[in-house]
Amino acid sequence: MADLVAVTRHTSIAPIDGGITAPTGFRSAALHCGIKAKAGALDLAVLAVDTFASMAGLFTTNLAQAAPVLVSKRHLDVTRGTGCAIVVNSGCANACTGEEGLANARRMTEEVASALGCEPEQVLVASTGVIGVALPIDRVAAGIQEACSSLAHGRGSEAAQAIMTTDPFPKEHAVRVTTPRGSFSIGAMAKGSGMIEPNMATMLGFIATDAQVKPAMLQRALVESARDTFNAITVDGECSTNDSLFAMASGNSGVVIDEELYPALLDGLLSVSRPLAPGIVRGGEGATKVIAVSVYDANTVDEARQVARTIANSPLVKTAVHGADPNWGRIVAAAGRAGVRFDMQRVTVRIGGILLFENGLPHDESAARAAEILKRDTVDIEISLGAGNASATIWGCDLSAEYVRINGEYRT
Amino acid sequence: MADLVAVTRHTSIAPIDGGITAPTGFRSAALHCGIKAKAGALDLAVLAVDTFASMAGLFTTNLAQAAPVLVSKRHLDVTRGTGCAIVVNSGCANACTGEEGLANARRMTEEVASALGCEPEQVLVASTGVIGVALPIDRVAAGIQEACSSLAHGRGSEAAQAIMTTDPFPKEHAVRVTTPRGSFSIGAMAKGSGMIEPNMATMLGFIATDAQVKPAMLQRALVESARDTFNAITVDGECSTNDSLFAMASGNSGVVIDEELYPALLDGLLSVSRPLAPGIVRGGEGATKVIAVSVYDANTVDEARQVARTIANSPLVKTAVHGADPNWGRIVAAAGRAGVRFDMQRVTVRIGGILLFENGLPHDESAARAAEILKRDTVDIEISLGAGNASATIWGCDLSAEYVRINGEYRT
Repeated sequence: MADLVAVTRHTSIAPIDGGITAPTGFRSAALHCGIKAKAGALDLAVLAVDTFASMAGLFTTNLAQAAPVLVSKRHLDVTRGTGCAIVVNSGCANACTGEEGLANARRMTEEVASALGCEPEQVLVASTGVIGVALPIDRVAAGIQEACSSLAHGRGSEAAQAIMTTDPFPKEHAVRVTTPRGSFSIGAMAKGSGMIEPNMATMLGFIATDAQVKPAMLQRALVESARDTFNAITVDGECSTNDSLFAMASGNSGVVIDEELYPALLDGLLSVSRPLAPGIVRGGEGATKVIAVSVYDANTVDEARQVARTIANSPLVKTAVHGADPNWGRIVAAAGRAGVRFDMQRVTVRIGGILLFENGLPHDESAARAAEILKRDTVDIEISLGAGNASATIWGCDLSAEYVRINGEYRT
Repeated sequence: MADLVAVTRHTSIAPIDGGITAPTGFRSAALHCGIKAKAGALDLAVLAVDTFASMAGLFTTNLAQAAPVLVSKRHLDVTRGTGCAIVVNSGCANACTGEEGLANARRMTEEVASALGCEPEQVLVASTGVIGVALPIDRVAAGIQEACSSLAHGRGSEAAQAIMTTDPFPKEHAVRVTTPRGSFSIGAMAKGSGMIEPNMATMLGFIATDAQVKPAMLQRALVESARDTFNAITVDGECSTNDSLFAMASGNSGVVIDEELYPALLDGLLSVSRPLAPGIVRGGEGATKVIAVSVYDANTVDEARQVARTIANSPLVKTAVHGADPNWGRIVAAAGRAGVRFDMQRVTVRIGGILLFENGLPHDESAARAAEILKRDTVDIEISLGAGNASATIWGCDLSAEYVRINGEYRT
């Protein structure tokens, strides 16, 4: 990544240290409250705003929604997008836990509210881990009180660790956005497909900024930025019960985001989200390679996305990439069953820039070179549909025997 | 299977020997023409009708359609569903092979036509095997001439072997349908998910009957019978470039199928298709278990099918079954992302008849018993949506490390 990216004529974006607490006005704490069995393993984080923040949220579209998702959606509705804190636990998804689960999720927000002196509805909650198991709520409550008494600036990295399940590495990023009307910061952290006991991958993402943004505009920017980042990734095509993406804006920078500065906010959100989203895929269960599937020359962006997603989720494409097999035939076949109309004779397929299929015929002479490229840990698959001008990219990963092992072990 | 099944008030169906050539009026030949590398491995079959037959066909919905699919569809159109033979090769899919591939597929029908004294349009063709490779057409043409000179009754089992790729076993079945107006026979064979070099699973199915059926009615019965048999299976959610299902009716039995006897024909087609369709799944790549996913109490059959298909294709469900993990949470989560509206609180999940999820809450006390049932080689997953009265079953298989190995090996 370049040190300094010129985004629009008068705006620049530069990476900075500090993760989720890089923007001013946010404090965090992370600790082991006893959900995870391993002693000392961080499993609880609290993110608090010094005063009040605009809040926005995007949630799983699964009909089976975990208790923290239901509670957070309701709180955002009640407060119309204002709040003071987010509490997150790992090790237990609090999903499929009935009325007790809802009471526990609400209790988590009540504990934060009582410690910080705000209303429970001003607190959002997220959980990740095993499904169908009740939270050890007394330990969680005690942990929340302890965390709220030790909130500090500049400790975002610990929070990024506390939200991990079996993620192989923490994922955080921050940028400074400089506009003609002043500069503001955006920090973010995310967790990907991990498991406690073999169960369900959950995507959690958190973004903080010290820009001053009204809730509706923050929500709009979050939705727009997620479309080509957090909503453009797939590990195994599964949509979790707990997927959540939150944004908080403290306003501490004094930079007011209006329509004129909206592009700067959006570019800033994209800048922190772009490295995190493929990072989730790279940390996906059993993944050894990130696959960026780009579809060009589609009639619409939706159609480009649909073809890219079908290819990125194809088990035959995923196993071929795993085996460094430049199997364009599987890519063509996956594109052909994506439910989008196009002329197969006009399709071209490239792997790592190498043309393998064109005018309905293979370029097998290039297969050996493509096989070499497939040994890298990031693989670009590019398909032109020859239909229109729209394009989209979806990030996926390969399918390995390790994925089967991780997800096939009995949870005893 | 019972020896004799009473289907309708005056019709009975009983299994018989003989596979695809069990009905009168059909001859077959199978041989090694040299597409497969292994000496003597059967790779070519011709099925011929003694006179002329009604013909029907169902084909892949993939936009990438192999040359034999394009040629067979055209021939069915031109003849309006009459014909005299089908020629099938294994070892090469003749897909993504451009104009040369189309010429080769046509050539196969011309060779049969010249040997049998009919028109090329009266011959259908199917291929299965590796994609993007040209047929060794001279060897295939010589093989067709030899096969056509050795056509014989009662040798359907050899044809069932000749259409296999790496299928672990041949799949054939035949029944006798006895109606108040006489009896007729139906024989069938199919091949499933195999590969020559790691490539693409293809479903091919062939059904012959000596009932006398007009082409339009044969097509209607084929479509209807496939809906809950050949179109209700999935190995990995991939739709091949070559999938084809053919039916031929010789009329030799003298039993005329009209609207009154249509149910007898349909029940007969279902009777030969039902054992073959899950047989394809059992022979799926790396499969160790067949999973029958039945969704009950849906609003519509389409919605039931969609939920069942999403569960049957879920990598997390497939790996859980592979590992004998009664992970109802993954089943619930897959149902929840199927794109069908229902009330999650009314959903029940059973594995092997054992209730694991009800009223939004788990029955974890039953998990150990369900885990025992999951060790069997056929697993029933039953979900009630509590919404309506419609139901559907989809047959899938587990996902094993062997699937990854088979499909990840580089095609050198």
